[in-house]
Amino acid sequence: MDPAQVSTVATAFTNHYYTTFSTDRNQLLPLYRDQSMLTFEGQQFQGANKIIEKLASLPFQKVQHQISTIDAQPNFNGIFVCVTGALQVDEDAPQRFAQAFQLIPEGTSYYVLNDIFRLNYG
Amino acid sequence: MDPAQVSTVATAFTNHYYTTFSTDRNQLLPLYRDQSMLTFEGQQFQGANKIIEKLASLPFQKVQHQISTIDAQPNFNGIFVCVTGALQVDEDAPQRFAQAFQLIPEGTSYYVLNDIFRLNYG
Repeated sequence: MDPAQVSTVATAFTNHYYTTFSTDRNQLLPLYRDQSMLTFEGQQFQGANKIIEKLASLPFQKVQHQISTIDAQPNFNGIFVCVTGALQVDEDAPQRFAQAFQLIPEGTSYYVLNDIFRLNYG
Repeated sequence: MDPAQVSTVATAFTNHYYTTFSTDRNQLLPLYRDQSMLTFEGQQFQGANKIIEKLASLPFQKVQHQISTIDAQPNFNGIFVCVTGALQVDEDAPQRFAQAFQLIPEGTSYYVLNDIFRLNYG
């Protein structure tokens, strides 16, 4: 896969993911499948419904992500993406985070097979 | 793959990787293959030799990693690992980092197909 295309997919995915996360976390459902996995601050979830249930239950009203870096590489099955940035929850101070995804092509789009999220304590 | 086994492999790999990194970065060569990719602070390298050349050229004498978290998930081809922690270079103040790896099984061991490293500026 052409490196420019990998980078374009990773950037489009990342922008879509965090915009949707801020607007309505339930709308992230179409990005996951039954075999998808989320590790959120060390807690493991498998399957689109369980993942969205977790994300939707996070106890804040407002969340805003500020992306610092998006790095991506192709691999045998799709695209490996790592994001770093800061997120602000309600009126709290911003916190650094890192999140990595394995994206798998499906038709003309991609779904998330692996998703690992960590706050990166300063 | 059994989740306990995924976690065991990820922890053993991570400990081996950072111990070797601190001792002699050239000894990381056997972990990479021709198809391996490293994105180091946004710079891309492909192939074991180019990756090790980059790592060996990093301009410090001493480096010590303090691992905070190791998260891992199985996927179609191997194991997806994300590490966060702090690293200290020479006598500088520690800096937070995040690093993600895709490990691919080969014989009784694993090699690194994807490797993305980022300092996570506080």
